[in-house]
Amino acid sequence: MSAANGPIVAKKTHKHPLDQLSGDEVEVARQAVLKVRKAHLIFRNIYTVEPPKAELVEFLKAEHAGTVSADTPRPPRQARVQYDVVYDDQSHEYLESIVDLATGSEVNLKRVDTGVQQSLTLDEFKEFNEVCVESEMFKQAIKELDLDEKFDIAIDPWPYGGPDVGEITPRYTQGLCFAKRRHENPDTNHYAFPLPIIPVMDTNKKEIIRIDRLATGGTEDGLEYGTADKNVLEHCRPAEYVPELLDIPLRKDLKPLNVLQPDGPSFTMSDDSLIEWQKWRFRVGFTPREGAVLHDVHYDGRSVLYRLSLSEMTVPYGDPRPPFQRKQAFDFGDSGAGRAANNLALGCDCLGVIKYFDGMLVDSEGRPSVSKNVVCIHEQDNGIGWKHTDFRTNRAVVTRSRELVVQFIITLANYEYIFAFKFDQAGGITVETRATGIVSVVNIDPGKVSPYGNVVSPGALAQNHQHIFAVRIDPAIDGHANTIFTEESLPVPMNPKTNPFGNGYEVVRKPVTKSSAIHASPFTNLTVKMANPNKINPISQRPVAYKFIPSPSQLMLADPESIVAKRAAFAHHHVWVTKYRDEELFAAGEFTNQSLKEIGGVADAVARNDKVDNEDVVVWNVFGLTHNPRVEDWPVMPVEIHQLELKPADFFERNPALDVPGTKNLSSVEIGRDENGTCCHTDGTTNGTANGNGSVQAAPTSHLQGTGSIRVADVNGH
Amino acid sequence: MSAANGPIVAKKTHKHPLDQLSGDEVEVARQAVLKVRKAHLIFRNIYTVEPPKAELVEFLKAEHAGTVSADTPRPPRQARVQYDVVYDDQSHEYLESIVDLATGSEVNLKRVDTGVQQSLTLDEFKEFNEVCVESEMFKQAIKELDLDEKFDIAIDPWPYGGPDVGEITPRYTQGLCFAKRRHENPDTNHYAFPLPIIPVMDTNKKEIIRIDRLATGGTEDGLEYGTADKNVLEHCRPAEYVPELLDIPLRKDLKPLNVLQPDGPSFTMSDDSLIEWQKWRFRVGFTPREGAVLHDVHYDGRSVLYRLSLSEMTVPYGDPRPPFQRKQAFDFGDSGAGRAANNLALGCDCLGVIKYFDGMLVDSEGRPSVSKNVVCIHEQDNGIGWKHTDFRTNRAVVTRSRELVVQFIITLANYEYIFAFKFDQAGGITVETRATGIVSVVNIDPGKVSPYGNVVSPGALAQNHQHIFAVRIDPAIDGHANTIFTEESLPVPMNPKTNPFGNGYEVVRKPVTKSSAIHASPFTNLTVKMANPNKINPISQRPVAYKFIPSPSQLMLADPESIVAKRAAFAHHHVWVTKYRDEELFAAGEFTNQSLKEIGGVADAVARNDKVDNEDVVVWNVFGLTHNPRVEDWPVMPVEIHQLELKPADFFERNPALDVPGTKNLSSVEIGRDENGTCCHTDGTTNGTANGNGSVQAAPTSHLQGTGSIRVADVNGH
Repeated sequence: MSAANGPIVAKKTHKHPLDQLSGDEVEVARQAVLKVRKAHLIFRNIYTVEPPKAELVEFLKAEHAGTVSADTPRPPRQARVQYDVVYDDQSHEYLESIVDLATGSEVNLKRVDTGVQQSLTLDEFKEFNEVCVESEMFKQAIKELDLDEKFDIAIDPWPYGGPDVGEITPRYTQGLCFAKRRHENPDTNHYAFPLPIIPVMDTNKKEIIRIDRLATGGTEDGLEYGTADKNVLEHCRPAEYVPELLDIPLRKDLKPLNVLQPDGPSFTMSDDSLIEWQKWRFRVGFTPREGAVLHDVHYDGRSVLYRLSLSEMTVPYGDPRPPFQRKQAFDFGDSGAGRAANNLALGCDCLGVIKYFDGMLVDSEGRPSVSKNVVCIHEQDNGIGWKHTDFRTNRAVVTRSRELVVQFIITLANYEYIFAFKFDQAGGITVETRATGIVSVVNIDPGKVSPYGNVVSPGALAQNHQHIFAVRIDPAIDGHANTIFTEESLPVPMNPKTNPFGNGYEVVRKPVTKSSAIHASPFTNLTVKMANPNKINPISQRPVAYKFIPSPSQLMLADPESIVAKRAAFAHHHVWVTKYRDEELFAAGEFTNQSLKEIGGVADAVARNDKVDNEDVVVWNVFGLTHNPRVEDWPVMPVEIHQLELKPADFFERNPALDVPGTKNLSSVEIGRDENGTCCHTDGTTNGTANGNGSVQAAPTSHLQGTGSIRVADVNGH
Repeated sequence: MSAANGPIVAKKTHKHPLDQLSGDEVEVARQAVLKVRKAHLIFRNIYTVEPPKAELVEFLKAEHAGTVSADTPRPPRQARVQYDVVYDDQSHEYLESIVDLATGSEVNLKRVDTGVQQSLTLDEFKEFNEVCVESEMFKQAIKELDLDEKFDIAIDPWPYGGPDVGEITPRYTQGLCFAKRRHENPDTNHYAFPLPIIPVMDTNKKEIIRIDRLATGGTEDGLEYGTADKNVLEHCRPAEYVPELLDIPLRKDLKPLNVLQPDGPSFTMSDDSLIEWQKWRFRVGFTPREGAVLHDVHYDGRSVLYRLSLSEMTVPYGDPRPPFQRKQAFDFGDSGAGRAANNLALGCDCLGVIKYFDGMLVDSEGRPSVSKNVVCIHEQDNGIGWKHTDFRTNRAVVTRSRELVVQFIITLANYEYIFAFKFDQAGGITVETRATGIVSVVNIDPGKVSPYGNVVSPGALAQNHQHIFAVRIDPAIDGHANTIFTEESLPVPMNPKTNPFGNGYEVVRKPVTKSSAIHASPFTNLTVKMANPNKINPISQRPVAYKFIPSPSQLMLADPESIVAKRAAFAHHHVWVTKYRDEELFAAGEFTNQSLKEIGGVADAVARNDKVDNEDVVVWNVFGLTHNPRVEDWPVMPVEIHQLELKPADFFERNPALDVPGTKNLSSVEIGRDENGTCCHTDGTTNGTANGNGSVQAAPTSHLQGTGSIRVADVNGH
């Protein structure tokens, strides 16, 4: 890279159009913006521009045809640069530049509506603390609490949430405050000591403008109940989770369970982002907002998905006492899942043979900042994949289900989310979310209980809340022209003509012809099929498809007229079907921070009333968890798991896992018999080598055997 | 054991009251019955009588107090003997004797209502084939099909299902018929060649009394469409699943994944049935009807469940064309899950270190017949159990979730079910079912499709059907007097007094005071809590409880007035709450075979209108799967998984998995870095030995670190 006067351009590379930026490319983009924008800039994000689908698809066609060479035309490689311009009066303007990396020049500039607020940055998080320390208003509030000097104050900066109706809000940040025991391990859990104040900062002016006082009452107290502001921590008790601070010994009786892959993993990663495993082939991207993103997912050479991503999550709290209506995070839009991604650790976050890869982020000066090990890829065993025993011969054929997991984990102050895309050998893709971490607590008076949450530790009320997620599925079922069908199983009243004995039921399929929202309907077994109406399965004569059953999660509980609800229109339906548009990626719209309502999200996309049958269509699945905390969720909650399962439905001509070898795992050991115990009746095809492929097990099935076949010749009387 | 003239008694043993019978004990019971019943007997089952709860609880109290000795009074050990008496006119009477094993004498005799039919036996299965071969009626039907002599006939005997209204039915068995390619591997898949006839046998007379002809038409044909009876197999194609018959090679690129437990398992099994693992302690029983059953489940010395079992499953088919209304199996009541249990194979059905145990069954002469390895017990890793990273210090504490699995697998002709009770370290118990095996198909004419199913192979229509399961939960939450609560999360309209900003919602708890049925209600987040109202959690001040969220599965689709629906009243609600009664174990009643309606099942139990709050109460959870087959379900379907999760809810005073060591697994390997790669920042407490317990990992969390604490002294101005 040249640092001279000419245009700074990235080294000529043939990175894949979907690859993350290299450090060099980040630097090119940064310089390009600095050159044309002579002002104080605060950089937020610099990341790869995904090419318009129309352009990218052409390149991908060549790629899949195996005809890509150095001369193959490819979409221009570009970077998106998101940054603030800070003016002398400390006001900010939010700009977004597109930089062409080959020429090192800005090719597009977007000035963002001043009515919206962009996501929080790490610098703003840090500044919150500093501003509090300097704030007389904050110091006074702390003084009034008359805390013991054995405590420090720990502040979790939060997005401000939705402003109240009529409230004038420049850029704000709020802070949830806790006391932290001093002279202790720095990892002592401060959440056990919640303080009943929330300082509010004018983020750009770097000034605490208000201290919100929190009610600490119980069931018997009104919404506005004011704390005595004294002795608020006297009844609180430590609640440690780091092992050296625990008041009980760690379990000694958990013996090691090791996952060993002596021949290495079954997947390959090449070309920086291309994963191939068990007939699957896809690319892994990583964005500051979404974390890991999957692209161009194929199975056995056939297209399944164009793109798969976590799109948004909102966490509204159900405590009606002000200002808790503003405890509503949008963890993707307000913070950024990629920016909050954990650096994963070998042997801790997954077992076996792991491939990690790094995320490219930037610091506030726009310089590349590599976040190590933000995504891990590994295989795991998920029990039996399919099994059948012929009771006549006792021959059992059983395969195990191996999965490939692409995982990332994010920390948002108190909470953790573990996201995994899991591929299986039967053509399935599961999007798994695990919620863990520390539930959000507020102070409650001694001896009281509350209808708004559960007392999980003395003085600590864990407030009832919801987590509502949106997954964006851009299907490409054997091509980009797809139709979404709903399929319901409905009762048919007993009648002589069509249901004489009453056992019949009907399966009703309906195409979605216009962009729409769909509610989950478990009692009709509502299934969503993403089909290619132009390609018919030759066996079933139905369109090839992938399906999922939308989880009938409870949706947004807040009053539809509330700010909380309006900010998250996406959280009002389980499935949204929209016509594809480039860069329409975010269920709640691009700007969620301090939003008053959802703008540019899925509800707006649906409102376009586009034709969506036999079109390039996008499906958004919304699911959630109403979390009324248990005491067992304290101090760190056991994972709550949700799975969205995408499964082939007449996409293939039979079970695609039929060719998975039913290999006996010879490393397994039986207790009380020798290692080659007599339990396992292996048929003649077993190759006998440890973990060899291609062998098959036959296990006797008791008490059903012995009913053999009858010869046609016999019954025919020959 | 004495074979002399005196009473034959079992050797003096101190087997646990819940243990399966020994071979000696079976023999004692058999002899006791043979002695008093001078007739031709066909034995069905001989198994342990579980003592009345009132008696057993006293013994268990002593056991838990550690005061059991040889002199401790214990409930009399008894065997239940179920058998047919065959009279000279070939009529059968079904009797049930209770034999006291200490005295070797019958202490109770029950004559079963002649209006019911007991389950099918293996002998009856075998006889079905023999009777068909001898039947001129059957031979004629086969002859009319004019099959190629390259075929054999394979018959799957099935329960007769529900008779039609007004039909007079002695004991019947029906047979689903398929053609099986000759001169082939005996494991060639005959289900690919379905024949359009169902022979019906008078089971006691051993005579084919009717051949039902099956429609083979499509959407355009009426219910009664008759097949041409010619060339019904011409368009059928082989659909093999045993690997040596596959027309494609097995995958070569799946590398071994071994689970090694170098120090052995973390559980112990003692006393024939007692399992102890990670603070859990319970007994595993095994019955001919239910398969594995769990008893007396405790965590850390506290009672959680008295008994946990699979109770029933019904599989109604939704094809309205007669006689498919009689394709409705009750796999527990008609067949018996224990008797259908697979003999599991090391390294095939689970990985790692496995403890198998055997089931005691009997042959038709009442002699003990040990079914080997019907239950397996092993540990597995289920990913991250809990995790939190303090963004201030970057200290990550992460534990993995280890599970203990008690698994059994049943084969019922074409279908397989995998049942597992899974315990975790956070106090959770999951009842997992996996459906696999071969979908039931019937013949369909060339080129046709049908509204009643999906063509999964040429000529093979996989009919739409449901699987509806019932799990019986006998809670003992810190004692036997429990109350069931429902808890729903409900919106609250925005209003100035209680919900000024509209974000609030309310959680409504209601006790179930009378025996009742409850519908799942996902959109109100309906949660069922099994609580002990006499014991209050000192932290939350709520009753200690376990909870589950009933899956909103689609329930019985058949018309409520149909025989199919009436036979399975249990399948009409998701949760049933009943007052405990000894031996009330079966959701659809004891006798399901050929039943016209459910008798003595949960609906009848609820109709007693018992008081159930603060009583010994039983909870039945019903869930299911509407299975409209995919082509991918053929020829053997990938597992469909359902999980029922029982979780503590204010049972403990914090996360019970808090003391699980966050051990780094040192056998894990990173691709592209050395084995001690730099990724994993381990804190000072790590002991550094391979897979040692007690160590804890700290992994850096990127981009959130650095916002430290504030000293109270500083803000207080000291």
